Amino acid sequence: MSGPVGRQGRRPTIKAVAAAAGVSTAAVSQAFHGKGRLSEPTRQRILDAAGELGWSPSAPAAALRNARTRTLALVVRRPTDVLGADPHFSELITGIEGELAPRGYGLLLHLVAGAQEENALYRQLTAEGRVDGAVLTDARTNDPRPALLARLGLPAVLLGPPDRAGGVPSVGLGHQGAAVEEVVRHLLELGHRRIAYVAGPADLQHTRLRGGVFETALKAAGLRPYAVLHTDFTEVSAVAATRALLEAPDRATAIVYANDSMAVCGIGAAQRDGLRVPDDLSVVGYDNLPLGRWLHPRLTTVDQQVQRVGAAAARLLLARCGEDVEETVLDDRPRLVVRESTGPAPASPVSALSPVSPG
Amino acid sequence: MSGPVGRQGRRPTIKAVAAAAGVSTAAVSQAFHGKGRLSEPTRQRILDAAGELGWSPSAPAAALRNARTRTLALVVRRPTDVLGADPHFSELITGIEGELAPRGYGLLLHLVAGAQEENALYRQLTAEGRVDGAVLTDARTNDPRPALLARLGLPAVLLGPPDRAGGVPSVGLGHQGAAVEEVVRHLLELGHRRIAYVAGPADLQHTRLRGGVFETALKAAGLRPYAVLHTDFTEVSAVAATRALLEAPDRATAIVYANDSMAVCGIGAAQRDGLRVPDDLSVVGYDNLPLGRWLHPRLTTVDQQVQRVGAAAARLLLARCGEDVEETVLDDRPRLVVRESTGPAPASPVSALSPVSPG
Repeated sequence: MSGPVGRQGRRPTIKAVAAAAGVSTAAVSQAFHGKGRLSEPTRQRILDAAGELGWSPSAPAAALRNARTRTLALVVRRPTDVLGADPHFSELITGIEGELAPRGYGLLLHLVAGAQEENALYRQLTAEGRVDGAVLTDARTNDPRPALLARLGLPAVLLGPPDRAGGVPSVGLGHQGAAVEEVVRHLLELGHRRIAYVAGPADLQHTRLRGGVFETALKAAGLRPYAVLHTDFTEVSAVAATRALLEAPDRATAIVYANDSMAVCGIGAAQRDGLRVPDDLSVVGYDNLPLGRWLHPRLTTVDQQVQRVGAAAARLLLARCGEDVEETVLDDRPRLVVRESTGPAPASPVSALSPVSPG
Repeated sequence: MSGPVGRQGRRPTIKAVAAAAGVSTAAVSQAFHGKGRLSEPTRQRILDAAGELGWSPSAPAAALRNARTRTLALVVRRPTDVLGADPHFSELITGIEGELAPRGYGLLLHLVAGAQEENALYRQLTAEGRVDGAVLTDARTNDPRPALLARLGLPAVLLGPPDRAGGVPSVGLGHQGAAVEEVVRHLLELGHRRIAYVAGPADLQHTRLRGGVFETALKAAGLRPYAVLHTDFTEVSAVAATRALLEAPDRATAIVYANDSMAVCGIGAAQRDGLRVPDDLSVVGYDNLPLGRWLHPRLTTVDQQVQRVGAAAARLLLARCGEDVEETVLDDRPRLVVRESTGPAPASPVSALSPVSPG
């Protein structure tokens, strides 16, 4: 296994970077040392130019760039308050750390607001030689990151379905669609016909993928989704979506949630309205978090083995960073775990109309 | 505000490190570059000696040691599988990241198994100039870390009660004891007399502190704890402790848990045994995680503002690293948030005997 791929050809100069960014060489130096009075856009433009040209400011950083840092980057593009709300990330980090910790590696966690910030960060981390590799989360449609990281020579793995990563190996359970089909089949077999989906943000690849399969699977049974509601993964949005689905006289009899935390909030909201789960409403989560096994009723969910995927991604990345680690082959698919929160569709659903607010 | 305090005097040599560790200079070099066939104890001994002497292996690292890394360390001493189980850490990291992200800082997360590994890591991170500062978690009795980090010249803050950190400023809500007293008073007022405490690991400072106050508060009312059970914070141990408390004919009528995730597992276990919460059993959590507001019944808990404490720690540390950040003064105390999982003690508790296992 080889380390980061070095850029070929002559070593770029600070002058070339200054010219590319349209600033003085002094400004380039300031941008890298966090001094001076550069505006943030100018600083970013300089760092971007340096990243593109493969220039780094000094012998120290250049030397360290070729040394092991024993650090991998995980850049998460989320509002900071959602990181806490979604245990998915704790699970993922736990899986990654399980491989990193015994080898003395650390995980450099960065939260960024958007794509531009994320890309600039990879350029900077590479230029400054701060990490040996990066785990990319949240595969997106037309994702520009694999090409960028290949250009930077920074080893990376993408968390996502196989064969979508162009230039960067991806790690994830295949057959995500099959799992959603299994959920729909399970609910149809229980007699449900009014099945709703509480999804994540519309621009995430897995949101689009699962939403499409959900609709297709219902269509094959001659049905349409009761509703597909998008959320930002927060508890508040999960409860609001649930209440919207339960307010109608012909309310949904089953709700599929894009993750377990939202499903737990949904169960709470339904119970608060006097509905029994699963007698009056069936609920399916997604993630198989530990908590779901201990709730009453125990949560029916899709096990997508977040920890195992995180561990497999870490192992693959460690191998690409030159560590003597065997890659894990994830030949599993996400599977439906039927517990107690799903049951036969009610003959004549009661409506739920009492007002609810957080305590 | 000043940056890391430099060590005074002559620059230490690789010979001095080799002599201190009782190895060859080649071995010292190998220890730092991860090459050769050093045993892990030898490698640690060398890194420790280098850390103590303030030696680092090369000009690059030495030069970078004085540069900003825009990275703060968070070293967590926990089994990796508990990180995922305890949302407390997501909340803490969310609070820290909320201050770091807008300033372009990253958080270097390391999981370690024990004290020795944690201390060696601080030495190594300092020697290699990889971080600007460190957030210390889980204040312990006779905690050696504040003195170590002061010696290393690495800026740090300790998460914990004020005035316990000797040499390192601490950040945390004071009056932790007062919150536990408030919990006990609340339960006594509801008529409970058989009150149990499901605590964390015995060697954590807050476990001892809260356990002591719990006992004292009951004693003041002429009572003794129904039981104090220690756990490792996992769901499995929380459910086991709950079942132990509910199996006796004269079972506990109220259980106080050391965190919300365990309380949620406890509610599930009790409901599964046919007990109604709060009619048959009152439950109190600790942390005030977002989820607790949405469960049914909503969780009575202690709000210790984990996110705010994390943010305050980050701000203080950023200021100590030379950033222009105003420190936050946390003048609050943890406060009891009464919701729906606590109620009047049952007149004649029913016992719960049916077997339970995870699904």
